Amino acid sequence: MEKLKKYVSMKDEDHFYHQGAVELLIFNFLLILTILTIWLFKNHRFRFLHETGGAMLYGLLMGLIIRYVTKSPDVESGTVYECEELKSGPSTLLINITNQVYEYQYKREISHHNVNGHQGNAMLQKMTFDPSIFFNILLPPIIFHAGYSLKKRHFFRNLGSILTYAFLGTAISCIVIGLIMYGFVKAMVHIGQLKQWEFHFTDCLFFGSLMSATDPVTVLAIFHELNVDTDLYTLLFGESVLNDAVAIVLTHSISIYSPKENPNAFDAAAFFQSVGNFLGIFAGSFAMGSSYAVVTALISFMHLTKFTKLCEFPMLETGLFFLLSWSAFLSAEAAGLTGIVAVLFCGVTQAHYTYNNLSPDSKMRTKQLFEFMNFLAENVIFCYMGLALFTFQNHIFNPLFIFGALVAIFVARASNIYPLSFLLNLGRKQKIPGNFQHMMMFSGLRGAIAFALAIRDTGSQPKQMMFSTALLMVFFTVWVFGGGTAPMLTWLQIRVGVDPDEDLKAKAASQSASDLDKNTAKAESAWLFRIWYGFDHKYLKPLLTHTGPPLTSTLPEWCNPVARLLTSPRAYGDQLKDGDTVYIINNDELTENYESSAHIPVPAQDSTASIQATGKEDIQEGDLGLGGYKLQLQHTAGQPQKNSLA
Amino acid sequence: MEKLKKYVSMKDEDHFYHQGAVELLIFNFLLILTILTIWLFKNHRFRFLHETGGAMLYGLLMGLIIRYVTKSPDVESGTVYECEELKSGPSTLLINITNQVYEYQYKREISHHNVNGHQGNAMLQKMTFDPSIFFNILLPPIIFHAGYSLKKRHFFRNLGSILTYAFLGTAISCIVIGLIMYGFVKAMVHIGQLKQWEFHFTDCLFFGSLMSATDPVTVLAIFHELNVDTDLYTLLFGESVLNDAVAIVLTHSISIYSPKENPNAFDAAAFFQSVGNFLGIFAGSFAMGSSYAVVTALISFMHLTKFTKLCEFPMLETGLFFLLSWSAFLSAEAAGLTGIVAVLFCGVTQAHYTYNNLSPDSKMRTKQLFEFMNFLAENVIFCYMGLALFTFQNHIFNPLFIFGALVAIFVARASNIYPLSFLLNLGRKQKIPGNFQHMMMFSGLRGAIAFALAIRDTGSQPKQMMFSTALLMVFFTVWVFGGGTAPMLTWLQIRVGVDPDEDLKAKAASQSASDLDKNTAKAESAWLFRIWYGFDHKYLKPLLTHTGPPLTSTLPEWCNPVARLLTSPRAYGDQLKDGDTVYIINNDELTENYESSAHIPVPAQDSTASIQATGKEDIQEGDLGLGGYKLQLQHTAGQPQKNSLA
Repeated sequence: MEKLKKYVSMKDEDHFYHQGAVELLIFNFLLILTILTIWLFKNHRFRFLHETGGAMLYGLLMGLIIRYVTKSPDVESGTVYECEELKSGPSTLLINITNQVYEYQYKREISHHNVNGHQGNAMLQKMTFDPSIFFNILLPPIIFHAGYSLKKRHFFRNLGSILTYAFLGTAISCIVIGLIMYGFVKAMVHIGQLKQWEFHFTDCLFFGSLMSATDPVTVLAIFHELNVDTDLYTLLFGESVLNDAVAIVLTHSISIYSPKENPNAFDAAAFFQSVGNFLGIFAGSFAMGSSYAVVTALISFMHLTKFTKLCEFPMLETGLFFLLSWSAFLSAEAAGLTGIVAVLFCGVTQAHYTYNNLSPDSKMRTKQLFEFMNFLAENVIFCYMGLALFTFQNHIFNPLFIFGALVAIFVARASNIYPLSFLLNLGRKQKIPGNFQHMMMFSGLRGAIAFALAIRDTGSQPKQMMFSTALLMVFFTVWVFGGGTAPMLTWLQIRVGVDPDEDLKAKAASQSASDLDKNTAKAESAWLFRIWYGFDHKYLKPLLTHTGPPLTSTLPEWCNPVARLLTSPRAYGDQLKDGDTVYIINNDELTENYESSAHIPVPAQDSTASIQATGKEDIQEGDLGLGGYKLQLQHTAGQPQKNSLA
Repeated sequence: MEKLKKYVSMKDEDHFYHQGAVELLIFNFLLILTILTIWLFKNHRFRFLHETGGAMLYGLLMGLIIRYVTKSPDVESGTVYECEELKSGPSTLLINITNQVYEYQYKREISHHNVNGHQGNAMLQKMTFDPSIFFNILLPPIIFHAGYSLKKRHFFRNLGSILTYAFLGTAISCIVIGLIMYGFVKAMVHIGQLKQWEFHFTDCLFFGSLMSATDPVTVLAIFHELNVDTDLYTLLFGESVLNDAVAIVLTHSISIYSPKENPNAFDAAAFFQSVGNFLGIFAGSFAMGSSYAVVTALISFMHLTKFTKLCEFPMLETGLFFLLSWSAFLSAEAAGLTGIVAVLFCGVTQAHYTYNNLSPDSKMRTKQLFEFMNFLAENVIFCYMGLALFTFQNHIFNPLFIFGALVAIFVARASNIYPLSFLLNLGRKQKIPGNFQHMMMFSGLRGAIAFALAIRDTGSQPKQMMFSTALLMVFFTVWVFGGGTAPMLTWLQIRVGVDPDEDLKAKAASQSASDLDKNTAKAESAWLFRIWYGFDHKYLKPLLTHTGPPLTSTLPEWCNPVARLLTSPRAYGDQLKDGDTVYIINNDELTENYESSAHIPVPAQDSTASIQATGKEDIQEGDLGLGGYKLQLQHTAGQPQKNSLA
């Protein structure tokens, strides 16, 4: 009744285990090579190749070797068993072969035309990761680290612009790439390059959304090393962090967009359904991530002071921090939301609240742990990208499609940066100058997220073509743009060697001197953030951390018994140390006007101290790539006065 | 021609991904609970439950919930497809079901009687790890950490005794358990409890070898916390670390022991083959692990001084250290050796050489990283052990066998500790007192290694019975003996609150005062170690680290040009800092007589400084469990004088 044809490759249990070790060993070897090379390069201040570019290069070479040097394909492979009795693929399959039962586990669905791809040699097959590894293991630490190392002061200072670039810009980029690719696809159909299968507009949009995830890790590493202008750094870093989240949710929304009838016609209901999905998933993931971080903050806060001393056991503290942050990711995934987005906002919130509650030892431990995980995961992904060019067995390289994609990402980046910068400059006191815009245009590199989104589904031929093209775009942008960052900075005359804190203060000073008359207008546009800061500073920070004024002074008097219960005994003593909030309050364009009576300049000694501290930290972080996570706990003489005024 | 019967459980790709998240979330939740509980316990100095015991308890409860609360078994499951055309199970199977091709991956072979076990519910199945995860992911960090945190001075001081307990003791324990179990099995066959399948003597020996892996993590954590007598701590820690390696290789050797004819008869050829295997695998793994560590030491040494400054990039340094250590594991596995043993000796060698070359920042980073990984892996394993009692679906609990095992592990531990201690005391200057022997007898806990070895193969009914029994032994020993450690210490009147360094010095002083006449006799028995120390101190340390005398002074004069090339420029300046070697030289019973002209006492100020430093480190490590990894770089006035004498 059922027909079974053979599909056999070598099977030997011991061989099987050892093979796994060999694969991992290859990766280890590539990473070690990468580290040694980069080390040499860093030492000679050779900035044309970042570690990610190096990892990609070595991966490429290793892929070449594996492809052409290892043994020839198994002849027996690539045939399919047929089974008409089953209605769907079971998750576990028991098969009796020559009187011995074997257990098989469901891996994936593959389309018929890919079956031949399975004829490749066993080594190539082994070197192909399960795509879910990217989303479940490699990306979360990278994204969490990005959130955790966001320079909050500078980030909030440019929040409006960053949100505009990240949300509006990504949407523009997605649509522009989608339209251009649709044009190219039409042309390809016209000249007969595409025929038997269809490439819908939604497929083009899907490609647009995944190619909209920028990842300027190389550029940012160089920026950090050269201390490029902080505003530029923050704009680019903030945009790329949020843009990842937007692109991931956007890709998901487009992939589940299913118009009822003609797939090329516009279906308003399905479109709004997708928009609703996007908003729902984004908001849900945001809420999930933040709430886990708040729980962590609460636990660490309570244990730190109220009940026991967690800080005596930094290992437990670090473990708790790590597990709760990972739980944010897993809970979002389990709830059908986007774990990556949850983990991003979890990181941001952890840095804002929990970090303040950690013991000094745990602060360093968590920071170094996440740095290390970020470093490893990033290099593994870039290594794998290099490998995938030769070891992935279903590549479809279509020159016209690749050329189209290259044009599309340029045009899309340009129609994202320039018009939005123009619009933003209308509202910004501190304009985004032309050379910054050119640099942002130039920094539209594609990296880990675009790759991970593309590899998630390579079942159909359009998806395979997209994957191959996305891979080439990553290579091209990382090597060409990444390598050209330093010359480009010189050519665009962007200032380097800027101390972030001095810069911020200088700008704040010049603003407050020249723009005092604009304050009323600015205050209007920033009312949302003023309210948020007031709330955060007065209630959330005292509740969740040991900084900020004690709740007893911020809550109404009738709340005093509750407030006293909730206030950390340390808060009374440590209320002077809320350096971060002070900074935001004193220096932010958005919050400058928060409590107009509280215009107390930061004393000169303090600012010097903070600059020195920051400088020191920079040296320690020299090799970090994204580096620069700084929270200063500093005494600011202005703070208690303000509290008494508030 | 082929018959295929149905085996279907729910399959839905999205559901599939989310399920993975739910499982991990359960583990996260259990670990978080464990951390919070232990934190509370630690704070109240409640020492009856160590975190591993807590993790096991929570795992048990969660297993109970999953077993009896989650949905009832799928009705469709548990049937086997038959396929006579295949000759062996392919590693990947392509199946065409209702015109859609699914890919299945080979998981394992199962015996016919276990097929019914697959009728259990999907959730229980999902909660069952692949056993290779234990050996490839969870155990390596634990074992590496153990090697890396070995207190070298105390370890080498008791090396002879530790090696005796670890090698001879484990062999005795294995044989005794094997014999007793064989007796019980015979009895069970006699009364008719065992019938249709056979339980060979080799199976009993296999059980004996896996049950010989002791894991007194709970006991050691309490010892560390209470600062129990250092000799006892070192004997127990050293024994348990090496004993794991011995038990793993022993189990492997027994499992591949295959007598030609009657499996119950003794086959001398096969026996010597097994002994040869044991020695070969052990030596090979040792060599593999050590050589990777030496490579790491060389790289870090060269980069630190000769070519570039790796220490400026602690992240790269840590990454390299981590990757090379992991490569030791993977290379050993790929070469058919035992990765766990390789990683253990890699850890020991890294601590001896590489650690000295690391920058202070990297020293802390690597230490904390491995601590953290050890902490997580250990708790995951113990959590899983708790879960496995209810979620593993092929348990065979045989009361007689369990009772036999309980008797066997007691008798085996007793015939390991007491006779060997008696023999050792004949040769030891510093006797192992009776209460130490009782404590070591009491500390024969079984843990992660025994579990991992038992779960590796649960295909046949004897193996399932062994697994179930091993699991119960772990529960029993961890809870009963682990919980009873503190009372037992009091009852046996073992002194606590000992400072390890002061202790060592006091002992060394009392020895050198009273036993000066025995020196000549001692020197004879310790010649191997004297040679090794001389070689290590004069050649290896200067070549691989920045400590020790410069090679120019230790090599013969005609080697001077080579020596100058190989000597670190820092060695000339830093030669005073070889604190570790100095300690060994000044305090070890084995090396006391190394260069008899160099009997220069350590100045009093120095020893005070070192004690203070150690005390501080102890506080930071308070929660570590195995804790106590201390290398001091201290100036010792005696050292340059000695060099000039040498």
